[in-house]
Amino acid sequence: MSGEQDMVPETRVLAIASHVAYGFVGNTMATYVMQSLGCEVAGINTVHFSNHTGYRQVKGTKTSAQEIRNLYQGLSQSYLTDFDVLLSGYAPSAAAVEAVGDIAEDLKRRAESKPGSFFWVLDPVMGDLGRLYVSEDVVPAYKKAIRHADLILPNQFEAEVLSGVKISTVADITAAITAIHATYSIPHVIVTSVQLSRLGSSTPASTLTIIGSTIRSDGTPRLFSVDVPALNCNFNGTGDMFAALMVARLREAVFSASSSSSSIEQLKSTRSWVSPDDVAPTDLPLATATEKVLSSMHYVLERTMEARTAELAAAEAEAGAEADTGETDEQRQFRKHLRETKAGEVRLIRNVHALRNPKVIFRAREWPSS
Amino acid sequence: MSGEQDMVPETRVLAIASHVAYGFVGNTMATYVMQSLGCEVAGINTVHFSNHTGYRQVKGTKTSAQEIRNLYQGLSQSYLTDFDVLLSGYAPSAAAVEAVGDIAEDLKRRAESKPGSFFWVLDPVMGDLGRLYVSEDVVPAYKKAIRHADLILPNQFEAEVLSGVKISTVADITAAITAIHATYSIPHVIVTSVQLSRLGSSTPASTLTIIGSTIRSDGTPRLFSVDVPALNCNFNGTGDMFAALMVARLREAVFSASSSSSSIEQLKSTRSWVSPDDVAPTDLPLATATEKVLSSMHYVLERTMEARTAELAAAEAEAGAEADTGETDEQRQFRKHLRETKAGEVRLIRNVHALRNPKVIFRAREWPSS
Repeated sequence: MSGEQDMVPETRVLAIASHVAYGFVGNTMATYVMQSLGCEVAGINTVHFSNHTGYRQVKGTKTSAQEIRNLYQGLSQSYLTDFDVLLSGYAPSAAAVEAVGDIAEDLKRRAESKPGSFFWVLDPVMGDLGRLYVSEDVVPAYKKAIRHADLILPNQFEAEVLSGVKISTVADITAAITAIHATYSIPHVIVTSVQLSRLGSSTPASTLTIIGSTIRSDGTPRLFSVDVPALNCNFNGTGDMFAALMVARLREAVFSASSSSSSIEQLKSTRSWVSPDDVAPTDLPLATATEKVLSSMHYVLERTMEARTAELAAAEAEAGAEADTGETDEQRQFRKHLRETKAGEVRLIRNVHALRNPKVIFRAREWPSS
Repeated sequence: MSGEQDMVPETRVLAIASHVAYGFVGNTMATYVMQSLGCEVAGINTVHFSNHTGYRQVKGTKTSAQEIRNLYQGLSQSYLTDFDVLLSGYAPSAAAVEAVGDIAEDLKRRAESKPGSFFWVLDPVMGDLGRLYVSEDVVPAYKKAIRHADLILPNQFEAEVLSGVKISTVADITAAITAIHATYSIPHVIVTSVQLSRLGSSTPASTLTIIGSTIRSDGTPRLFSVDVPALNCNFNGTGDMFAALMVARLREAVFSASSSSSSIEQLKSTRSWVSPDDVAPTDLPLATATEKVLSSMHYVLERTMEARTAELAAAEAEAGAEADTGETDEQRQFRKHLRETKAGEVRLIRNVHALRNPKVIFRAREWPSS
């Protein structure tokens, strides 16, 4: 019983993101996801909150940029920085983004003599649905820091902010990714969850599309997409889940012994794991990793939907049986919101098998380059 | 593929203990251990350190008592306090111990109408080997707080501090546990790792003994012991590992559907899960849980020893190949200490199967009551 058959190759990750006591977002999500796939995870927490902000009320503290630097210095002074991957998510200020950027630069510098031995996955958490939810000075801080990133995971809005391309048509997505490759020399980009039907495509409104690309040697994008059915629920932490699964599955795609063709063998020691130009978009490690990641996520989120429905039905029955609580309508509405948010917490723990052994049900397709 | 066959019954835990970025102690250990067995864990971190103190240098911050209270208030205001178990470990001040005590009281009060629905496992972290490593005012804070605990996990020194009994003979252990039951009305006690050979017993020096007890209705102890072979390595975080596994295995012993005899059925709704007087010491849920806990731990720690040896051999070879580094002897010694401490970090992640499916190799025996 070695028990390691479900695990990705050994991977040491430094994860810098938020921490919540209750529920699953940020590092609280990412740490468990990566650990359950076999990764060693060191976590620097950028906030210490009671719960995620989807509840609309939260208590706790933010970590200062100096505290983030200080924790990293603590690792450094005891020779605890032999990381294979940096995964960075929410940082609560421009100074914190800079601190994360400096940590990434230091880790890159240490790995310089061994190409492929260090990789930075950066989720440029800035906003969503046309709106920034960080202060404005965070944007230029990210634009500077991402030049050292190997893979970035913007949502549609963040891709617009970084590329300067307003995404109004399907072709704009291609233009935005092309611009991100070119402007920041970022080798891998994935734009998470785009609703193509809103961009004039005939794709059903119930479909979400994930579009990724690994750069070619001439700087052009090598694009693929994966469609998934949208679930009718406002989950929190799914971006963090995507990023964490991606770390593990990308390492697996590049380092797994089963991928023993010689081009894969070379890929391990290629800077940023950029595949040779003759590798087709759908054969990219990034594409095969995305297929597994989305398959795991869909299973877990479907189970979450079911559990949410059952939990809310039980709660409603209980609330109905309660005597008049003297609450105002507004209070009752807010309590309902809290109940629904709690019921929507991702059901990670009891569905861990689907993280470890996903049944791959989604497939990457080539996405037009122009 | 339900995947839940290796998991304990659903358990929601609030875990209050320290957090380290690198390695496994405190909540960093306990959270993953409990999650891997199927528990939902909400974590309030009492310190945010780069690494554990065994490295002899650490950076980071401590959480104030007010911040601990504040995080709990955050959970409270959003109705996120439906915990089955509180697991509390290191608290960095007397005020923090009081804050944890107040949180426990609040959770107990909420569960009052449903006996058995809430249980507090308290690790009274104060010192070891005859020496306090917390400030002196933490001791009276613990003496006050533990009156609400259901199970406490002192080491030999902490058992002395709490009981007022100096443990010089084997019989003194019994006296100390009897005093803890009587003085604080604590239903369950486990004294973790005693070296009986130092107390005049003929037990080999290479054996560690764990002694536990569940109180009888007349206040007398119901004692059992489990012997394990000592491993020749100074591990960190093993107390936290023990506590976390105990939470999961005790819940399993009390709540598992497979234990479907009617006395077990009643136990679930008995305050503090205290078994009827006719249950023998070795048949206690506490005893069967301890057997599983120690079997998991022994496997993981043996694998850790092996990995440590291999890692150090590789590091020595590399260090030998290095050019003269210009270090002083003292610097070289300290670097060796850091290397050894890092190599001794518990290998949790890749041995998770032994947490989930331990082969039970240790058995509880009755321990004399006088």
